[in-house]
Amino acid sequence: MIARMATPASKTAAGSVGTFDTLFLDLPNPVELDCGRTLHPIRIAYETYGTLSPARDNVILVCHALSGDAHAAGYATKPPPESTRDGFAAEDRDGDAGRGLGWWDGMIGPGKAFDTDHFFVVSTNLLGGCRGTTGPSSMNPATGTPYGSDFPVITVADMVRTERAFLDAIGIARLAAIAGGSLGGMQALEWAILYPDQVDAIVVIASTHALPPQGVAWNAVARHAIMADPDWQRGHYYGTGRPPNAGMGLARMVGHITYLSAKSLGDKFARRLQFADDIRYTLTDPEFEVENYLRHQAETFVRRFDANTYLYTSRALTYFDLARQYGNGDLTNALRNVSARTLLIAFSSDWLYPPSGSEELAAALRASGKDVELHVIDAPYGHDCFLLEEGRQTPMIRKFLAR
Amino acid sequence: MIARMATPASKTAAGSVGTFDTLFLDLPNPVELDCGRTLHPIRIAYETYGTLSPARDNVILVCHALSGDAHAAGYATKPPPESTRDGFAAEDRDGDAGRGLGWWDGMIGPGKAFDTDHFFVVSTNLLGGCRGTTGPSSMNPATGTPYGSDFPVITVADMVRTERAFLDAIGIARLAAIAGGSLGGMQALEWAILYPDQVDAIVVIASTHALPPQGVAWNAVARHAIMADPDWQRGHYYGTGRPPNAGMGLARMVGHITYLSAKSLGDKFARRLQFADDIRYTLTDPEFEVENYLRHQAETFVRRFDANTYLYTSRALTYFDLARQYGNGDLTNALRNVSARTLLIAFSSDWLYPPSGSEELAAALRASGKDVELHVIDAPYGHDCFLLEEGRQTPMIRKFLAR
Repeated sequence: MIARMATPASKTAAGSVGTFDTLFLDLPNPVELDCGRTLHPIRIAYETYGTLSPARDNVILVCHALSGDAHAAGYATKPPPESTRDGFAAEDRDGDAGRGLGWWDGMIGPGKAFDTDHFFVVSTNLLGGCRGTTGPSSMNPATGTPYGSDFPVITVADMVRTERAFLDAIGIARLAAIAGGSLGGMQALEWAILYPDQVDAIVVIASTHALPPQGVAWNAVARHAIMADPDWQRGHYYGTGRPPNAGMGLARMVGHITYLSAKSLGDKFARRLQFADDIRYTLTDPEFEVENYLRHQAETFVRRFDANTYLYTSRALTYFDLARQYGNGDLTNALRNVSARTLLIAFSSDWLYPPSGSEELAAALRASGKDVELHVIDAPYGHDCFLLEEGRQTPMIRKFLAR
Repeated sequence: MIARMATPASKTAAGSVGTFDTLFLDLPNPVELDCGRTLHPIRIAYETYGTLSPARDNVILVCHALSGDAHAAGYATKPPPESTRDGFAAEDRDGDAGRGLGWWDGMIGPGKAFDTDHFFVVSTNLLGGCRGTTGPSSMNPATGTPYGSDFPVITVADMVRTERAFLDAIGIARLAAIAGGSLGGMQALEWAILYPDQVDAIVVIASTHALPPQGVAWNAVARHAIMADPDWQRGHYYGTGRPPNAGMGLARMVGHITYLSAKSLGDKFARRLQFADDIRYTLTDPEFEVENYLRHQAETFVRRFDANTYLYTSRALTYFDLARQYGNGDLTNALRNVSARTLLIAFSSDWLYPPSGSEELAAALRASGKDVELHVIDAPYGHDCFLLEEGRQTPMIRKFLAR
């Protein structure tokens, strides 16, 4: 099968890839999962930007983070109900949000970090997703109803195997690069281990070989909030009219705070009151601007994201641990077969995926004689930097990919 | 009325104040609150350690933090269902927990930081509490049922006015010192401003003049978790058999993570699995030791603490802002009437009440020519240090109090 390339459907803005519909493809074969189960059918939601070279040697796979989707760049033909850009990005670019700008539009396009004048960029919604790819909200062929919590518990490796199967289906054997931030970076790392001879380079941003214990704890709280909501209904809430919005909103609030640095939260909101004159002695209403902001984040998120997808994806990213999976506890050993050149980017203020993780990873790769480059960018926005610090990441990535 | 001194009821351990019953006193007069309402009756739960001097000039008031109570030192005659010591302290000292050791026992006693051979230490459960002092779970005389969310929204100043009224009732006019950590330190600061000529010294540990925005955000999430629980029932859950345990447990999980440093959580749990052989592909069961630990913390906390008290106390500590309350936005101005000598102690790894807050406070006090001493202790346990780093705090406090 020949890769189907989306064509810009409207006038292209400067540096923009244009306007896109998300496309869909059904995988021809079942995918075998780490848990021992087999999944079929699997539909993949995807977008592509740029032009596939005749030799098919200019493909970059972009992998999204926990709450992303296939719409990585350009404008959506049909804007989603809410922007799919995370956090500050969605908030601070109100002008873009309404037009459905892709979550990594600042990085993908003509002349950008992932330059669509040279590369053919492929972006898929990950396995377990809720934005077009098969996940817990999809129909379970065994029952004729949505999987809910009967969906298999998946891993990052399962996401990667599914991406491999998708690329096979569109006729792409080899990748010039795989890139992603956060959970997206985990997928890039897992690719480099699972398919070492099919990946030339990986770009791993604000990510890690294993989430530190505090991140495991935050994810546990977020999942607990969803599952403690009576509306979760043990995972079978579809069609009941009672999705676990309260728990999902709480999960989002927790996540959101961890994506920002204390400093960036302070710079943005300080301790400003909603009503500047004075406090109003209320338990139930927001008093501080930051309280109101968190509620707003929760409310908009539950409208665009499925709680079970949050559970499955959060579980997968806490399980991810290259040393445990491939190295018998030793990270250097786990990376022994990697052949891809590796670019690691971390951010000084990222306390959820701290630079120390990238430094450990770089040291382990170097210890095996691998080709690795690490940049720690001094920037104030916490984990969200990977979506925001486009200007400083761009030359690093362009130079790395040009080597 | 003469202060009633509890007498050790059993053999005294070395350095221990002995064994105590918590005592109770009903305030003779109503207390006027910041919100404009008046509260009456008010019962105060309290304990005292040491001997009141004939001149009544050796009194130290100890103020507890969010989840504490009047039982600050020694062993309880009737052990509470769970230890009232927070976090690691409760976990790591299993031997003590079952015997009901006070939450600051390492700091209060013969030869300790607050030396009961010299000082008469008074400890009360704060206004709004759930461990004997009047709070939302107390009977509302207007209805004959518990206040629930009809309890007035209180401030740290209201807590301090109530402590003042309690000390009046037991015949104590003047305090040699007021000491506390976290919310307890806020009370000490508020005392020094509200009653400047009645306080000789304050000891403010791991505390601040105003909680930073990230702490405001965490507290908002914790309160939101409680109020989003259908069992909260808009605050009127008493007697229904359905307290908001799920929301309360979530609030505790969030709080607990913020009390620890990322490093201490990592040192304690790393990424160890519950079942060391491998992951079990489960959404609902804890997989990592840290997940199990958080659930255990949640379960034990809901058995000993009232959700509404958590809401009211959390709201009070986020409202607390000396510059807004007393300085028209300027901290130095707010502190202009302070006459108490001030000892500030902060901990390097405390990211909830970071040392920068204590440094701002020290600078503002110095700018007004006040007598202030600041120590930042380099210690790894996060905010919980104020309960754990007894050995290093003790000489600082003893020396400060002896001046």
